[in-house]
Amino acid sequence: MMDVKKIREDFPIFNVKPHGKRLVYLDNAATTQKPESVIKAMEEYYEKMNANVYRSPHYLSVLSTEAYEKARDKVKKFVNAKSEESIIFTRNTTESINFIAYTWGMKHIKEGDEIVLTIAEHHSNILPWQMVAEAKGAKLKYVYLDENFRLSMKDFEEKMSDRVKLVAVQHMSNVLGIINPVEEITQIAHKYGAKVLVDGAQSVPHMKVDLKKINCDFFAFSGHKMLGPMGIGVLYIKEDLLDEVPPFLRGGEMIDEVYEEYSTFAPPPLKFEAGTPNVEGAYVLISAIDYLERIGLENIYEHEAKLLEYGLEKINALEYVKTYGPMDSKDRGGIISFNVEGVHPHDVATILDEEGIAVRSGHHCCQPLMRYLGVPATVRASFYLYNDFDDIDALVEALKKVRKWFK
Amino acid sequence: MMDVKKIREDFPIFNVKPHGKRLVYLDNAATTQKPESVIKAMEEYYEKMNANVYRSPHYLSVLSTEAYEKARDKVKKFVNAKSEESIIFTRNTTESINFIAYTWGMKHIKEGDEIVLTIAEHHSNILPWQMVAEAKGAKLKYVYLDENFRLSMKDFEEKMSDRVKLVAVQHMSNVLGIINPVEEITQIAHKYGAKVLVDGAQSVPHMKVDLKKINCDFFAFSGHKMLGPMGIGVLYIKEDLLDEVPPFLRGGEMIDEVYEEYSTFAPPPLKFEAGTPNVEGAYVLISAIDYLERIGLENIYEHEAKLLEYGLEKINALEYVKTYGPMDSKDRGGIISFNVEGVHPHDVATILDEEGIAVRSGHHCCQPLMRYLGVPATVRASFYLYNDFDDIDALVEALKKVRKWFK
Repeated sequence: MMDVKKIREDFPIFNVKPHGKRLVYLDNAATTQKPESVIKAMEEYYEKMNANVYRSPHYLSVLSTEAYEKARDKVKKFVNAKSEESIIFTRNTTESINFIAYTWGMKHIKEGDEIVLTIAEHHSNILPWQMVAEAKGAKLKYVYLDENFRLSMKDFEEKMSDRVKLVAVQHMSNVLGIINPVEEITQIAHKYGAKVLVDGAQSVPHMKVDLKKINCDFFAFSGHKMLGPMGIGVLYIKEDLLDEVPPFLRGGEMIDEVYEEYSTFAPPPLKFEAGTPNVEGAYVLISAIDYLERIGLENIYEHEAKLLEYGLEKINALEYVKTYGPMDSKDRGGIISFNVEGVHPHDVATILDEEGIAVRSGHHCCQPLMRYLGVPATVRASFYLYNDFDDIDALVEALKKVRKWFK
Repeated sequence: MMDVKKIREDFPIFNVKPHGKRLVYLDNAATTQKPESVIKAMEEYYEKMNANVYRSPHYLSVLSTEAYEKARDKVKKFVNAKSEESIIFTRNTTESINFIAYTWGMKHIKEGDEIVLTIAEHHSNILPWQMVAEAKGAKLKYVYLDENFRLSMKDFEEKMSDRVKLVAVQHMSNVLGIINPVEEITQIAHKYGAKVLVDGAQSVPHMKVDLKKINCDFFAFSGHKMLGPMGIGVLYIKEDLLDEVPPFLRGGEMIDEVYEEYSTFAPPPLKFEAGTPNVEGAYVLISAIDYLERIGLENIYEHEAKLLEYGLEKINALEYVKTYGPMDSKDRGGIISFNVEGVHPHDVATILDEEGIAVRSGHHCCQPLMRYLGVPATVRASFYLYNDFDDIDALVEALKKVRKWFK
């Protein structure tokens, strides 16, 4: 098993004592904490190499440009993409998905076309497609869940047809933790000539992702959910689509020639990155990936699987708590959504907070899923490499207190 | 005069010795260096308060949400905006301008409408409008410069008519340093019913900006050019336009209700900020503004004016160097663009680099201006509060070397 005690020593945030209590941070699906090495990389960037990239031949600019391109190469290898041109730095997953909606989507989706989503998508993978559908007269179709709260592949196959131009699907649900078979989904979608966009915000931080194997067309994820800084995200565009996708933001560095009336664009990836990029964010992401790779993504996945199994067992043992999602832990990330009988999720979260336990309560940016599950909101505990059984025990003890207070 | 020696001690980057030389950083129009207090604020954020905002009632999330909103309030006061709802966090100026092009622009600019720009605009304030003009069948009109390389207000008035729906103008040129009379421009534009977008990327870091006084409709600037971190920028939308501007990126936190087929939006500013924002970037921006305010924007402006005057005098004294822009330093920021007779700007910059001097060479993302000036590229030295006369002397001595080597 991973040495969680030692790992926690790398994360200065655990010196914080919320309300005098030990910090039990179980809000990792929202954002993750940062190891010392990541914080130090930030310092290092601004103390030793800060400059704008590509634009000048001076010492600092050469260093920062090298750092930025090193980050691109690092990310490429991390997700096993074929080429660096496919790795585009954005702010976060939301921007990455909107990027494709505003560019490829607005260009290639026409009246009468269909976009297939799943009912468990995050708002960031729903609203951009509502926008495209409305602008173009296209139709959204949702794939629902099976009786075990997993994506119904039967329903998916039924929703597919030649009218479908895009399948937009999350790799891992931020509410249920289910891991969708995106490789199989891509295979099926491609048979119908549809493109596939995978929202990898919840998967990339927690499991080994292999884009060559998944073979999807677009893939999006965020740095801040994988020990990296806020303000840096990634959009992957498959190599053979780089020319089909128009530029999104327009401005400096993405151009070839600019005339008063028209402009021509630089080759990818620059074509897709207008203005001063977040060089610091990209550089620091290298340190985050280094940290994850030192621990090992397989180890992290296994560790969270154990936490999930232990957590499900302990929480399901509380007869006044209802958990959502599959009862088993197979193909499922370290996320447990639940409600305490008769207590509003916000009240649960507030009481947990008083015990130093950080969870999220609400609709988790998944209102259609909440409606589908028949609940207005849930509490969500989401794990990462610095969590251990003690954290889950603390959660369970606190839930007993919630019950006592509200009974 | 400002105590530049003392100020430089606050900036760790000056410990870097490029090629063994003292760092003379004159690339501030591209990006600025960060004081220790800004770097420390970054650390502090991740060590003491990191969490996602708005979403959870837990201790860290409350801290980070407070930090984020404090940043909004700080920025509001810094640029003297009327209300916090008008302050929207973006990645940078480029995103802010594209934001308005994709939203207000695509909605309100129609066939036959005109957009008035200036010939000195940065690509980031040209290409988004080329996109809108192409999509909508609108026309771009450029205002040219007068004989003293300042914006011709005569030409501006001639270009204005009832067909003009938008005037997009930089506050300060990143090549010539000219400060445009944006208050007067706004007054005139409003008479014709046109909206005004001001690109404040070069002005906000270097002079006191008062948005109530300017009275423009949209205003954009970047954190990284004002001692702040990369990856955080600001878009200001005037209060009475907040409802007229549709959301840009769509996803979490910007919604009210989400159904399978449609969604409703949150009130501003949340409506304009989809997904996990760069909370760290916003929080650290507070420290950058604190630093600038401690020194005083008026003092910084005056200091740079002295550097400009001294620099113009010294550089213009070299008969083989040609500078671009007004010969006087009135209403002009601390930017000097120049060329050395018979030497390519990139070669000049490379030789300066060997002397530890960081300048930019190229078209500065202003190809239409370069064409207008009749040069393919220039060298650019741009000043900030940590520069002094010694830096300019070093530049002048290095230019003498350039001349010697290439003569």
